[in-house]
Amino acid sequence: MDRRQALRTATGGGLSTILAASVAPAFAQGRKELRMQMTWPKNSPALATGATTLAEFVTKATGGALTIKVYGANEIVPALQTMDAVAAGTLHMGHGYPTYWGGKVPAINFLGPLPFGITSQEQNAWFEYGGGQALADKLYAKLGVKFFPSGNTSVQAAGWYNKEINSLADFKGKKIRAGGLGGKVLQAAGATPVQLALGEVPQALQSGAIDAADYVGPYNDMAFGLHKVAKYCYWPGWMEPCGALDCFVNHKVWDDLSASEKEIVRVGNEYANSRVLSEFVAKNAQAYQELVNVHKVQMRMLSDDTLRGLGALAGEVIRAEAGRDAESKEIFESLTKFRAMVMPYTKISELEFMRARLLDVKL
Amino acid sequence: MDRRQALRTATGGGLSTILAASVAPAFAQGRKELRMQMTWPKNSPALATGATTLAEFVTKATGGALTIKVYGANEIVPALQTMDAVAAGTLHMGHGYPTYWGGKVPAINFLGPLPFGITSQEQNAWFEYGGGQALADKLYAKLGVKFFPSGNTSVQAAGWYNKEINSLADFKGKKIRAGGLGGKVLQAAGATPVQLALGEVPQALQSGAIDAADYVGPYNDMAFGLHKVAKYCYWPGWMEPCGALDCFVNHKVWDDLSASEKEIVRVGNEYANSRVLSEFVAKNAQAYQELVNVHKVQMRMLSDDTLRGLGALAGEVIRAEAGRDAESKEIFESLTKFRAMVMPYTKISELEFMRARLLDVKL
Repeated sequence: MDRRQALRTATGGGLSTILAASVAPAFAQGRKELRMQMTWPKNSPALATGATTLAEFVTKATGGALTIKVYGANEIVPALQTMDAVAAGTLHMGHGYPTYWGGKVPAINFLGPLPFGITSQEQNAWFEYGGGQALADKLYAKLGVKFFPSGNTSVQAAGWYNKEINSLADFKGKKIRAGGLGGKVLQAAGATPVQLALGEVPQALQSGAIDAADYVGPYNDMAFGLHKVAKYCYWPGWMEPCGALDCFVNHKVWDDLSASEKEIVRVGNEYANSRVLSEFVAKNAQAYQELVNVHKVQMRMLSDDTLRGLGALAGEVIRAEAGRDAESKEIFESLTKFRAMVMPYTKISELEFMRARLLDVKL
Repeated sequence: MDRRQALRTATGGGLSTILAASVAPAFAQGRKELRMQMTWPKNSPALATGATTLAEFVTKATGGALTIKVYGANEIVPALQTMDAVAAGTLHMGHGYPTYWGGKVPAINFLGPLPFGITSQEQNAWFEYGGGQALADKLYAKLGVKFFPSGNTSVQAAGWYNKEINSLADFKGKKIRAGGLGGKVLQAAGATPVQLALGEVPQALQSGAIDAADYVGPYNDMAFGLHKVAKYCYWPGWMEPCGALDCFVNHKVWDDLSASEKEIVRVGNEYANSRVLSEFVAKNAQAYQELVNVHKVQMRMLSDDTLRGLGALAGEVIRAEAGRDAESKEIFESLTKFRAMVMPYTKISELEFMRARLLDVKL
């Protein structure tokens, strides 16, 4: 009997009973404690920073009147049941990745990274000034929770490979650990996307059960030892140019918070969001240096022709996904409109500056 | 008699008296109200968002027990006397731009944008994970205030010109509104940097008193009508690839805040920081489209040779500035070390992704 079953049994089952039972102890001794489970292990590099940053801030800002106790994946329920447990009230809050819930509400996949889409800085701007928060709220409300962006990965790698990819045809027949919209694009290119938990990937690469793996970026990948089991790390990260983490709060728990507590939790997530991104920016760069200079990893670029081929497939795959329901269509249109608006400006400002400082400038 | 003099007279003068007088009324009726002046007018696009976001959050998070009343430039003291007034306690807090205080502590210029330096996303990571916050704290402590990053401009434009710049030699003899380290680089190229308040620039361009102006980016520049008085807008923004805004709090006021209030003000600034950046990303992109498509502005690129020339001068100028004192040297070395670490990774991740999505990808 797992812990979730134990909770159900202890409270006699039934969602409202579980909710009452789970919220009640939190108010003991005049303090409210909310239980939040992450979908990854405690201390996962950068990923876990979102939940712990939020929890520490809420405790300090309320002088301990409201606290959030953070659990790692599987401590209360299996990682991918976190959303169900929050919706049911077994947990009060969860911390994860939008595409994990795409099986429940397909449009939520568009809150995950869009292949060839927008960067983390642009995704933050879309949430705040492009209508993204309101669209996400609507989708997560269907799951019975309140949504917050709560971390961002920056541009991820294109993946670790044990065979070279010199053209679009080279994806054919490859077994690649990949999910979300990027996985569907690889499938359209003739690969077989394989679903594997983060921890199972190194062994699967080593045994040859898979040929390649989309993972995160240098900081996480090095921690998990991907460079020991794969020959090449490919760039650029066309599949996942950004990656918002999500924090979700049971709706009744959210409604019962005071106006001050709501604001503290909301802005605590804004803080977590920017802090996780900063950690990825700094620590990915550091890990990248170590992968190249110490571990002598072969960093490879996908050719422009390969990228053009993937881009054409991405357009087909994503438009097909967007056609599945009205919500998917709405969020896809919002994203592509925002993307079309920011791209020319990002090119002339960010991209051209990044290129200019690589000319032989000596600071 | 200006308002500042009026305050001094009313309280009998003397810094400690002013501080006592200015903090005391804030506690009336069991509520603390802090006075914060910005260095720009109220409602300045995106720039004013930092102060108002912080103030709104602090009020909500504390249930009104602590509030921040926001004043525009010159409402209490002249804009560039804001730091003196906060240090003296006439104001409790201020909101501005680090380079405004470079005349008092030269090393603070390095908290402003470094020509050919780092982007906003990287600057945030430097503050949080590269030692930047601690270095900034040390410098602002010399002014008697506590420092927070509180907004960021993203990459700014290279400036508005009424004459073409086709080579490094074309800067010679031009009168250009510019400040900070970028202004010194232009001076090294033979231009004459001119100091002008934001509001005086359009008239100076129109009358021909200046040939060009470094300003902010499309969102602000369009609001101030720069496109009506200058022919060309040049890119990329080598002078100001980022631009942290600063929030500074009188040290005694800061020390007297409770632990919860400190945390709320600190994280309120983190929120302001990311929100201002998101506003610039979204609104600059929108304004850029309008400048190009509606106002038919000629967007021009500096040639790679011109950029190389500026890069060489930037290296000389910045190293000379860094040699002025030990603090400048310390912060310059921290920045260039961080820049060297992140640049290769930013290239392979952000830059190469931004380039890849511009290949004929149809989303």
